[in-house]
Amino acid sequence: MDPKKPCKRFVLYYHDILFGGDDVANATSATTANATRLGNTNFGMLVVFDDPMTKDQHLLSPPVARAQGFYFYDMKTTYNAWFAYTLVFNSSDHKGTLNIMGADMMMEKTRDLSIVGGTCDFFMARGIATFQTMNQEGTKYFRLKMDIKLYECY
Amino acid sequence: MDPKKPCKRFVLYYHDILFGGDDVANATSATTANATRLGNTNFGMLVVFDDPMTKDQHLLSPPVARAQGFYFYDMKTTYNAWFAYTLVFNSSDHKGTLNIMGADMMMEKTRDLSIVGGTCDFFMARGIATFQTMNQEGTKYFRLKMDIKLYECY
Amino acid sequence: MDPKKPCKRFVLYYHDILFGGDDVANATSATTANATRLGNTNFGMLVVFDDPMTKDQHLLSPPVARAQGFYFYDMKTTYNAWFAYTLVFNSSDHKGTLNIMGADMMMEKTRDLSIVGGTCDFFMARGIATFQTMNQEGTKYFRLKMDIKLYECY
Repeated sequence: MDPKKPCKRFVLYYHDILFGGDDVANATSATTANATRLGNTNFGMLVVFDDPMTKDQHLLSPPVARAQGFYFYDMKTTYNAWFAYTLVFNSSDHKGTLNIMGADMMMEKTRDLSIVGGTCDFFMARGIATFQTMNQEGTKYFRLKMDIKLYECY
Repeated sequence: MDPKKPCKRFVLYYHDILFGGDDVANATSATTANATRLGNTNFGMLVVFDDPMTKDQHLLSPPVARAQGFYFYDMKTTYNAWFAYTLVFNSSDHKGTLNIMGADMMMEKTRDLSIVGGTCDFFMARGIATFQTMNQEGTKYFRLKMDIKLYECY
Repeated sequence: MDPKKPCKRFVLYYHDILFGGDDVANATSATTANATRLGNTNFGMLVVFDDPMTKDQHLLSPPVARAQGFYFYDMKTTYNAWFAYTLVFNSSDHKGTLNIMGADMMMEKTRDLSIVGGTCDFFMARGIATFQTMNQEGTKYFRLKMDIKLYECY
């Protein structure tokens, strides 16, 4: 395994539109447990999502995968999150899933999460998903670049 | 690693009886965060479970393992779930655990989740858990066939 | 892979101080979903944490890592938990993360969880984290010994 040479690599963009109460059609995620009173940076707020993944940065580009899972905020002094989710592919390019978990240290320019397994086209894959925030509009919308690097491919 | 030849394989059945408020003795799971108003298919409903796993389909057969973890619903247009849990074995056949996560796309006949690690008899195992719904009584009871296929055994 | 010879091993102590409503400065975790009424042992109570990890047992020793993630209680007859979290290292010894998940069967003296991935200094690592409870003061404070054993190092 060569850390400099993934056996497969591609970039996707994740779009999260948090449900505000009257935007069912547009929203792609919803808060299922509210922030606690431990600090003022949403500590404990837990969001479930079913988010489109696009090849370019445009929210309205045709999704090539869905990201299904959750994140929650987990620092009392700054915004910081933790993710666990599945990338679900069902396109002519790829079928199957990738399962991902890890900390999203939002104050860092880029941060690495673990790809811990995969199915179908990604059978038994492992690797690293590198997050980078591309856009952030409060808690209402954010867009992440996810650089998917697989180091175990079968 | 040969996708057609798991190094270990067995089938277990998962039984989930959702707590209704007055059935403590029978219930094996409980809703800890309620569904949001994002759609009508329980988006965001989060359930913690400690469910019996049996070798045949009968709920009352002696459990050979417990499944401990959680699932939540995560689509606004249909019922779809996401699971993370541990199979805990403590029988004459097997001791140890298997850790599993992934999307449960309930509209598919079968769906694959990732077995991302194991302990004791399943030390460092990896593989695929294939889900198939065998029975579904609203949200009150459902039974899944879990076909456990390990491709890394030590 | 030799189960008796990890390629890297170290011990850290985890300190969890549950937010009580008026101790923002000291608390390191908070309940984001309350216990259900399924039994009397906190079934369904979900706690998000950002906990210090120290090299010795002293809560006030300088942290060498943070543990960021969540646990929930999941048995109706006894206290039993399930964890998923990231160890975040940012010291002169180590940089990077380890991602961990599994059942914490609190009635057992020691219990093994899976280290399912890592980044940076722990690139693509896998292994076992062995938990042992060192101190428990109700739900307000507990301290775990985490024996981190990596069997895949790159």
